[in-house]
Amino acid sequence: MKIEYNSIGIIRTPHVKIAGMPIQTANARGTRGTIEIDNAYIEGLADLAGFSHVILLYHFHCITKFTLKPVPFLDGSAHGLFATRAPARINPIGISIVKLVAVEKNIVTVEDADMLNETPLLDIKPYVSEFDSIPGATNGWYRDRLKELPSTKADERFV
Amino acid sequence: MKIEYNSIGIIRTPHVKIAGMPIQTANARGTRGTIEIDNAYIEGLADLAGFSHVILLYHFHCITKFTLKPVPFLDGSAHGLFATRAPARINPIGISIVKLVAVEKNIVTVEDADMLNETPLLDIKPYVSEFDSIPGATNGWYRDRLKELPSTKADERFV
Repeated sequence: MKIEYNSIGIIRTPHVKIAGMPIQTANARGTRGTIEIDNAYIEGLADLAGFSHVILLYHFHCITKFTLKPVPFLDGSAHGLFATRAPARINPIGISIVKLVAVEKNIVTVEDADMLNETPLLDIKPYVSEFDSIPGATNGWYRDRLKELPSTKADERFV
Repeated sequence: MKIEYNSIGIIRTPHVKIAGMPIQTANARGTRGTIEIDNAYIEGLADLAGFSHVILLYHFHCITKFTLKPVPFLDGSAHGLFATRAPARINPIGISIVKLVAVEKNIVTVEDADMLNETPLLDIKPYVSEFDSIPGATNGWYRDRLKELPSTKADERFV
């Protein structure tokens, strides 16, 4: 089944190259991003400022292929695609939980921006702890690799 | 910018009608769902079983319109679309964090299934606490309305 979407805005970040980018928001703390929402949708931003965090859904626009057994940035071994957050996905949709800083007119300013500059935005949703926060979740193969996060950056293996 | 995806499988749940459906996973605890992944992608399920929870991204297939100021199920007042989880979105992508029960061949069994039967699947990602769990997040207008969650069900206002 084919599904067609349209970007609703653009995410601007300091990350202009894939090589050296942070891995995940946890590796991008404090990094500012600004989201420019298409003017037609400004009304939809009402009440967003009451939330401390938002979920960004976006299109990995530099991805042209997928791999079912990627070797993720954080590990030296291949894992099943659905057990990784690798961007080279069948449907290359990215998700980031970012800190909301400000909403002014059609500009949403966030922190912890881990996506490439000029990433097309698909959706913004409010982060709601009761729905989205599972502190005791077990993290599979990530568990023993998260210690590598501070010293690991992206490279161009997936593009 | 137009973006085209393809469903990669189908989600089967006991929710065959929109009216009376649970609101969010928090309102669907214990409800089983089975995800049938297209056989071409089975290899991508390797290592998934090590995670307690997964993020499902899916297409709200019954949505044909959006509204920028919906009145959400949990409130009597309109809110900006991006400050709600209403399904009538510009790009009708749903997200649910569900409990992983089992992975066998191309079937992924989950609990806390809050989506409609036969929902087209876009992606499965592992839930990783360090990336996705923000226990102290402030929940905007939801804060004072979450107490209504157990007694609130969906209706057909968005279709």
